Amino acid sequence: MSDADLLQQLMDAMRCLPGVGPKTAQRMSLHLLERDRQGGEHLSRVLKDALARIGRCEWCRNLTEHPRCNICSNANREQSQLCIVETPADVLAIEQATSYRGRYFVLLGRLSPLDGIGPEDIGLDQLSAHFAAEPLAEVIVATNPTVEGEATAYYIQQLAARHQIKVSRIAHGVPLGGELEYIDAGTLAHAFGSRQPVE
Amino acid sequence: MSDADLLQQLMDAMRCLPGVGPKTAQRMSLHLLERDRQGGEHLSRVLKDALARIGRCEWCRNLTEHPRCNICSNANREQSQLCIVETPADVLAIEQATSYRGRYFVLLGRLSPLDGIGPEDIGLDQLSAHFAAEPLAEVIVATNPTVEGEATAYYIQQLAARHQIKVSRIAHGVPLGGELEYIDAGTLAHAFGSRQPVE
Repeated sequence: MSDADLLQQLMDAMRCLPGVGPKTAQRMSLHLLERDRQGGEHLSRVLKDALARIGRCEWCRNLTEHPRCNICSNANREQSQLCIVETPADVLAIEQATSYRGRYFVLLGRLSPLDGIGPEDIGLDQLSAHFAAEPLAEVIVATNPTVEGEATAYYIQQLAARHQIKVSRIAHGVPLGGELEYIDAGTLAHAFGSRQPVE
Repeated sequence: MSDADLLQQLMDAMRCLPGVGPKTAQRMSLHLLERDRQGGEHLSRVLKDALARIGRCEWCRNLTEHPRCNICSNANREQSQLCIVETPADVLAIEQATSYRGRYFVLLGRLSPLDGIGPEDIGLDQLSAHFAAEPLAEVIVATNPTVEGEATAYYIQQLAARHQIKVSRIAHGVPLGGELEYIDAGTLAHAFGSRQPVE
């Protein structure tokens, strides 16, 4: 069976992509081989390059191929605001959706003692150093509203309090366009508990 | 924006994969960078290798990294049977699902005069040479039951008739487990027209 090997190897290698099962891996492999060899060669080249060169920003831990990412090295960004998120995808989402112009800090995870993930593993020692050294007026905690995300947010809040920095948490509740009938019970309960006075 | 470039380039490059839009490309890129760099490097290497080395089998036109694919070079396959399919994916599907042990011929397309695809473009001249030279007892035409697929099947049938080779077409009709109520009208009409006598 040494003959089918290279195609089979390619199909197996495609399975490292998230959400790609055997059928999709086969379709992707055959598509590249039959219809888009140039695109495939480009992908192979860029992927190799990206994996070799993209590392962590030394200040905010986001993914970048430079020592500092383009947000951290941009002097026009508001230096007194810091938004703390769990993943690089969260940074992209916030950049696309909001008009936030401050800096970020990417945890790359969340506190999870059961999985052995402590404060140092998600860079909270580095964050603490930033709290001490940087001219921060507001820290926005945008971790996910899960048990671990909330625990992480609480930990960061305690950390910021020690440096007298104002902390805010992004709002959680019923999404815009959502219908109460179909919202999960936890979100609805939270939305009731966090109701805002109307002027 | 030179800083986001490499990650952005990777996301763009991922879009050459079929069914991958901007969101999925982002998820795949970040997954590889954050969680599976080894898998990504392996994919990049195998993809480059596969694109450089996988070509066409000189006999059956299937994808292979050798001059002849492992089915054509396997002396244990039935030499008198030839199954004609449109794509390499069809070969994989038939190999997995059936007990067919003959050889294949892969058209890599179908007759489509409107798109400028004539007999030579799908290797029918090569197939005609096989009809003349090979000891074929049966040709099984397994092109898709589309207008172009049927036209291609008809053309092959005429070609085989000139060499006095028996031609058969795979059965089309209601799929096993299908319910008549939900079958499209064309398939149902075909199934009625092609009804088989029962002993």
